[in-house]
Amino acid sequence: MPKLPPSEDSILRKIAQSARSSLLDQKRTGRLSLGIGDDAALFRPKPGHETILTCDWFLEGTHFLRAKHPPDAVGWKCLARAVSDVAAMGGTPRCFLLSLALPPSLAGQWLEDFLRGLKRASRKLQCILAGGDTTQRDKILINVTVVSEIRAGQAVLRSGAREGDVVYVSGILGEAELGLKFVLRGRLPVRGNDPYIRKHLYPEPRLELGRWLAEKKIATAMMDLSDGLSSDLARLCTASGVGARIDRESLAAVCVPLIANRKPERSLQLALHGGDDYELLFTASPRKLPNSPWQFKSLPISPVGVITSGSKKVVYNNHGRILPLSPHGWDPFKKEL
Amino acid sequence: MPKLPPSEDSILRKIAQSARSSLLDQKRTGRLSLGIGDDAALFRPKPGHETILTCDWFLEGTHFLRAKHPPDAVGWKCLARAVSDVAAMGGTPRCFLLSLALPPSLAGQWLEDFLRGLKRASRKLQCILAGGDTTQRDKILINVTVVSEIRAGQAVLRSGAREGDVVYVSGILGEAELGLKFVLRGRLPVRGNDPYIRKHLYPEPRLELGRWLAEKKIATAMMDLSDGLSSDLARLCTASGVGARIDRESLAAVCVPLIANRKPERSLQLALHGGDDYELLFTASPRKLPNSPWQFKSLPISPVGVITSGSKKVVYNNHGRILPLSPHGWDPFKKEL
Repeated sequence: MPKLPPSEDSILRKIAQSARSSLLDQKRTGRLSLGIGDDAALFRPKPGHETILTCDWFLEGTHFLRAKHPPDAVGWKCLARAVSDVAAMGGTPRCFLLSLALPPSLAGQWLEDFLRGLKRASRKLQCILAGGDTTQRDKILINVTVVSEIRAGQAVLRSGAREGDVVYVSGILGEAELGLKFVLRGRLPVRGNDPYIRKHLYPEPRLELGRWLAEKKIATAMMDLSDGLSSDLARLCTASGVGARIDRESLAAVCVPLIANRKPERSLQLALHGGDDYELLFTASPRKLPNSPWQFKSLPISPVGVITSGSKKVVYNNHGRILPLSPHGWDPFKKEL
Repeated sequence: MPKLPPSEDSILRKIAQSARSSLLDQKRTGRLSLGIGDDAALFRPKPGHETILTCDWFLEGTHFLRAKHPPDAVGWKCLARAVSDVAAMGGTPRCFLLSLALPPSLAGQWLEDFLRGLKRASRKLQCILAGGDTTQRDKILINVTVVSEIRAGQAVLRSGAREGDVVYVSGILGEAELGLKFVLRGRLPVRGNDPYIRKHLYPEPRLELGRWLAEKKIATAMMDLSDGLSSDLARLCTASGVGARIDRESLAAVCVPLIANRKPERSLQLALHGGDDYELLFTASPRKLPNSPWQFKSLPISPVGVITSGSKKVVYNNHGRILPLSPHGWDPFKKEL
């Protein structure tokens, strides 16, 4: 029998099947009243909570390459990066919508591997597939909308940073960009044991840290580092109407070790401008948190600078020489993969 | 001064500016606590209500053509067709997320015209822009997520149709497909006074009818007609575990008049398989609604057939000859624009 081309309904069935078990888990909690298969999904909001809404493109050729990025990593990352915006507000993910366009030739094995990675992320992040839209396209196009919740009034915005607040980041910066370079050079993760490649392919949004900072009312402003420190800190400063100074000495704590990347200047550049880390960038009063590197449940947290008065400028303090720090992170309108 | 290429931030500013006035209106009602410009948007759900979540692709080359479809119609339609899924459940739209990818060369006039059409739809449908994501791409890619609400337990699903229910449709079927043909032949709406072109470019989701059918608990099952009656009715029947019979005599009431389309058989084919009408397809007990054409606030409502017992088959009654009615509506995996 000749192989029939896939139909929209047959692809939807495959996606629905993959979502089924996690859907049952969630249904038991009574929050998702209706999942895949109708005109829309139905979600029952938690009383006293606000709904956090965010969506993210994940496009072949712009954000990943079909020949270089394994399909299960595409599945993991399309959800994880959208959930990172939720971590950045202190919220808890509930469910997501998947919009997927793909060539009919990928509706078999590629789609199954993609759905496996997506399901792993969905379980890990406790964010279940509630619906979506599929269509045909020559390139793989993905858009993910995440619906999350937070107790009313508790969300941490970008706009709350005040003069004198310390600027913190979680984790190590530039790891994911280094991983991308390895992937582009063809070093695919045979056993997934390269930490840089792993961070690039399977980022883990800092949900627990974000929630803690929001619940304890510690962070005055917060966002996730998706485009790079120099670009994202400029956005936080603009939103808060403040400036910031990043200190070179402090950056040492968040740079990738020299062994991975032999030129020390290069580690600094990666920390300042490398994208895709999905770490948290936040500000807090110096009275609330240590002013030297510490750990939150084994995740390094490092002060890297300070919020300054209203100039909205971000500067870089290079051993006492103050230089402007221009946004040189990822901008899809300036560079592509 | 040389013209600078657009940046992601400059495009976001343009979108945010266009959303601003409607955002202020909504903020006054206290439902959208935070709009464009942060990591995510914050929405305050109405107590006692469920949240309806739906998303829709609208892609250049698949769903519209840059050379044929005016940008303000692209803006109107990308929101209107997503809101149509909300009408199909009986809900009320609240806000939406816009994911937009476009070539830098369209970030000027095209984007402004697009946003004008989007804003018109946003006002008309009372659904405000809450956030989104932008990136660069050679083709225009759009994805819209609509967040809506309905009193808990009141949503009309696809799965409630029962044997003996009458099958109803709103409006006239096939008008939008006829309009598409005119547009493809180059007959652009100089003064927008061709009703078929208007229905293709600026569809109006049947929100008021949907809400009425849900509130009064009249419809047993409902969905919107986006792909064509033959495809969509088959989905409703599968979801409800029933069959349906469409009667040729009844279809006359929903066919486009012969004057627009001189072959009578062609009008019937358009009514059965034409896509993009965004009318409502619903079922109801014969005791609840008239069994002959009637009007809901000047919108024609027509019975076109009846729900039959559990075979899940849709058949077509051609003056007493019963034929299977296969789904021949729009399927992106079978045909493109």
